[in-house]
Amino acid sequence: MARGDAVPRPKGTRDFQPSEMERRRAVEEGFRGLAERFGYREVMTPTFEHLELFTAKSGEGVKKQLYEFRDKAGRALTLRPELTAPVLRFYVNELSTQPKPLKLFYLGNCFRYEEPQSGRYREFWQFGTELIGPETPESAAESIALAWQCLTGTGLQGLELRVGHIGVLKNLIAALPITEAQKAELHRKVDKREPTESWLHGHGVPAAQASSFAHVAGLQGGPEVLDEALTVFQEPATRQSLEQLRQTHTFLEALGVKGAQLDLGVVRGLD
Amino acid sequence: MARGDAVPRPKGTRDFQPSEMERRRAVEEGFRGLAERFGYREVMTPTFEHLELFTAKSGEGVKKQLYEFRDKAGRALTLRPELTAPVLRFYVNELSTQPKPLKLFYLGNCFRYEEPQSGRYREFWQFGTELIGPETPESAAESIALAWQCLTGTGLQGLELRVGHIGVLKNLIAALPITEAQKAELHRKVDKREPTESWLHGHGVPAAQASSFAHVAGLQGGPEVLDEALTVFQEPATRQSLEQLRQTHTFLEALGVKGAQLDLGVVRGLD
Repeated sequence: MARGDAVPRPKGTRDFQPSEMERRRAVEEGFRGLAERFGYREVMTPTFEHLELFTAKSGEGVKKQLYEFRDKAGRALTLRPELTAPVLRFYVNELSTQPKPLKLFYLGNCFRYEEPQSGRYREFWQFGTELIGPETPESAAESIALAWQCLTGTGLQGLELRVGHIGVLKNLIAALPITEAQKAELHRKVDKREPTESWLHGHGVPAAQASSFAHVAGLQGGPEVLDEALTVFQEPATRQSLEQLRQTHTFLEALGVKGAQLDLGVVRGLD
Repeated sequence: MARGDAVPRPKGTRDFQPSEMERRRAVEEGFRGLAERFGYREVMTPTFEHLELFTAKSGEGVKKQLYEFRDKAGRALTLRPELTAPVLRFYVNELSTQPKPLKLFYLGNCFRYEEPQSGRYREFWQFGTELIGPETPESAAESIALAWQCLTGTGLQGLELRVGHIGVLKNLIAALPITEAQKAELHRKVDKREPTESWLHGHGVPAAQASSFAHVAGLQGGPEVLDEALTVFQEPATRQSLEQLRQTHTFLEALGVKGAQLDLGVVRGLD
């Protein structure tokens, strides 16, 4: 027993007691069962990967958050900071000939070198799904319904579901007469729910265009917000995005997910 | 998808396909269910530990098998090569006031830098139990029965259960008039099932003592081998070990584990 004496647990990590493990395993089993009911199948990848898998995706700057190291043969490796890139590596290397849509899920530990704070640890767990194949309103609704059922199944209270379509703002932003740097700034403003109309106008966007952009970015509610947006926009790609969002909402209701809020100001993932 | 292109999986590691994950999870659930039925509860420790946890136990030499690295604050860390030392660290740090016997199990990944070979990977999984508290023939039988049911439950064929008691040979070896280095060599010989009688005699052990040692080290069979050993040994500690082994065997049968072979030549763990 002396061998365990006095050596502390590494900073930012956790030991899980039996009572905590029972809750964890119950949540995991819930996630796994739901994913399987939606036709997803589990995959698992190694705990460490070649460093370049993540630097190729996120740039060298990501290294300051990584637990990177060299193995005894000098290979640059890192503990994985997330699971999407490893699962896509697995797909590219070995699963690309599988019939589509390929529906995969994963549940594994990830590592980030960050200052520990409340609820933030250096080793943490990620559950996720990848649907590889044509993206349709039906498949989008299925992914959202699965995520929603996972969260509500944990017993968390006060959850709110907001669904957007990045195509809507993407098309509008593309049409604005501003620079790329200004577009990036605009993303940030929309994401933070800051007002945009006078900022756009101040950067040379015609008043009518600035006004309709700001109006749509602020649209939230039931399917009626889509009707409202459709009266404003005649551009085919934008109208198609709005129609896809309407179908996604319809499929969600069919899957038993009621009361999702449509939110045209959702830009997460747009860049 | 391009981000996964061309980056290979790290040497010695595996990706698990859905069909493999389903088998893995079924085996894991079987182990977990059995452990819980035996009153064990699951714990989990971090994937990496302070390097000294393992060098303190196994010496600096263990480092050549470890994935060791320093974090950005200069801490010497390592991916865990096994789970006993971490679980005992957890016990010492946080669980030592829990009522005994404390029955813990764990199921986690471990890492060793070894040349990959058939069935040997650099990341692998370990399931194990720790029973912390007084060791009795009953608790020993319970641990053995659990391990046996885990293995047979996987559907593996051709399994054989051999049960020994390190107290028997330990007492005999302690009494032999040979050096510590020779005792270490003797361990190795017994472990490899090499003959020992003439070797012992050649190192100055009286013929009768060498002969009875070699005889006991070779004893294998049902409970009758204990009767045979008890006719040879009068020394109280050795007789006590033999009686404990008999009780363990009786408890094993009561737990439904029939036909375990007693084997007095089992020395694994003696050093």
